[in-house]
Amino acid sequence: MAPPAKKVSLTGIKPTGEPHLGNYIGAIRPALELTADYESMYFIADYHALTTLRDPALLRQYTRSVAATWIAAGLDPERTLLYRQSDVPEIFELNWVMSCLTGKGLMNRAHAYKAARDRNEEAGRGDLDAGVNMGLFNYPVLMAVDILSMNADVVPVGKDQVQHVEIAADIAGSFNHAYGSSYRFTVPKALVPAADDGRTLPGTDGRKMSKSYDNTIPLFLPSGKLKKLVRRMPTDSTPVEEPKNADESSVFQILAQFASEEVTTDTRARLAAGGVGWGELKNQLFEVLDEQLAPMRERYDALIAPDSELDSILAAGAAKARDRAVPVLREVRAAIGI
Amino acid sequence: MAPPAKKVSLTGIKPTGEPHLGNYIGAIRPALELTADYESMYFIADYHALTTLRDPALLRQYTRSVAATWIAAGLDPERTLLYRQSDVPEIFELNWVMSCLTGKGLMNRAHAYKAARDRNEEAGRGDLDAGVNMGLFNYPVLMAVDILSMNADVVPVGKDQVQHVEIAADIAGSFNHAYGSSYRFTVPKALVPAADDGRTLPGTDGRKMSKSYDNTIPLFLPSGKLKKLVRRMPTDSTPVEEPKNADESSVFQILAQFASEEVTTDTRARLAAGGVGWGELKNQLFEVLDEQLAPMRERYDALIAPDSELDSILAAGAAKARDRAVPVLREVRAAIGI
Repeated sequence: MAPPAKKVSLTGIKPTGEPHLGNYIGAIRPALELTADYESMYFIADYHALTTLRDPALLRQYTRSVAATWIAAGLDPERTLLYRQSDVPEIFELNWVMSCLTGKGLMNRAHAYKAARDRNEEAGRGDLDAGVNMGLFNYPVLMAVDILSMNADVVPVGKDQVQHVEIAADIAGSFNHAYGSSYRFTVPKALVPAADDGRTLPGTDGRKMSKSYDNTIPLFLPSGKLKKLVRRMPTDSTPVEEPKNADESSVFQILAQFASEEVTTDTRARLAAGGVGWGELKNQLFEVLDEQLAPMRERYDALIAPDSELDSILAAGAAKARDRAVPVLREVRAAIGI
Repeated sequence: MAPPAKKVSLTGIKPTGEPHLGNYIGAIRPALELTADYESMYFIADYHALTTLRDPALLRQYTRSVAATWIAAGLDPERTLLYRQSDVPEIFELNWVMSCLTGKGLMNRAHAYKAARDRNEEAGRGDLDAGVNMGLFNYPVLMAVDILSMNADVVPVGKDQVQHVEIAADIAGSFNHAYGSSYRFTVPKALVPAADDGRTLPGTDGRKMSKSYDNTIPLFLPSGKLKKLVRRMPTDSTPVEEPKNADESSVFQILAQFASEEVTTDTRARLAAGGVGWGELKNQLFEVLDEQLAPMRERYDALIAPDSELDSILAAGAAKARDRAVPVLREVRAAIGI
């Protein structure tokens, strides 16, 4: 007997800037750890970025950068599917089909749209739709199609993204109800990590590492710059010889995500015993980071170079993704009468 | 010197049922008369019909029927472009691009959407978006893309459709503003007939001929059925010998749209003189109609038959339409950074 087919997992990656350590620990590494249990697929949501990004050069750069990042971080394009959303035109025709099956009320209640309205209300604007484009408003439908076009079983997301998967399940249900005798979409489920603990990394100012706080440590910095950023992290004025609580130190928190458990436990004990200064801890963090990131950085730099193998990897991914989407669209067209 | 290129005119045809005499006089014939002055293009908006039509067999049937109708009515697919919207997948990718450039406020103000809200309000529904799907709400964006993907200069429409062309012009303007240094869309204009006079045909009950009144005379009825429908039209009880006012007679109004000016003038005079009964007028109308419609009906029946040349006509039209849309999408992708 053949082993049962693995379930399909789909992860969307929005290309909105250069990746930092927080992205790696919070999103990239945990997503790649799923690979073993699922038939994993990843797509770069470049057309989603278009809802906010009007700079063609940046959009192109971010798209290549995010693809290179995930491959450098361990995504094996031979074993998992990696493709650009814009390379699968079937998605956009399906997007129209699914629009016709999606109640407008569902979109009125979508979080991102409601947040935009709230911002307008707080700013005292009379028009709550001010600055909202139809890309933003339609976003959840396109995201549903991203998932449904691959007939994904699960979508690994953070808690704030669960609604998107629920909307996709809703839309799949509407299609299956209307046309289910001809074709049925897989109804997807959100795969939410049991706890986000430890996945949130502090930035160089001690707050959560985030582009909006301008406190990030970019993932692929040259060693020299990485060392400078680490050394600039704020610490308290506890003298070298005094005991220190590892869990109150941002430097240690980052170290704990990258070092082995053995090293982490040892460092915690040495800090508690006193005699280890912040400067020494920072040197240790830099060395741990640089050791892990150096091979990734090298691979990233090779991939991001013009005319690298990245383009052929993405072309091969596009072909495989269309191998899945083309028959889906064909079945859908037959079902709806187009 | 080469003669200046003709301007491009684009007409969308929504496949929503079998055509009747009112469609022919009100829409088909005047549209075909434009052919001489413009490079004329026509498309069957099958994906627009999906916003309301959930029956795949009917959608297929209506789509073929409307294509066969226009060809039978005189559209020459060798000289003018005829294609199915769904045969041009580039339209749907462009639809997403243009969504990102369309303010939601513009859609909030679109007539068809506002009419749906008004109906919900009148019905006392708390949710004004009840029954509104995202296809209906997005309709004007897709319609804009229909026009822009062909870079049409003019769009012949009735007064009630002018807003759609204005929205398309707005969206073209937004794109040109954002990306105009790389690519510019033609900003389309509505082409509204100076007057709709004489284009509104009475139905078999004297009211305007309309599917919603169930008073239509189908365009391609067999002679026997056509005769029966004409003879069933209501007339007053003026005796045969008395003078009659042609302009108060539905039968005459239809005749005037199909007979030559000479015959029309002559009939008007004979009615005014008295001695002509309604039965005689109906016979005359049937003969005029049957003479004009018989060759169209024959062509229609041949085209609508399974595996007729209709399929290859539509396939040729699709190829020509994509010849226009593919380079547009290519330019747009380069401009936006995809």
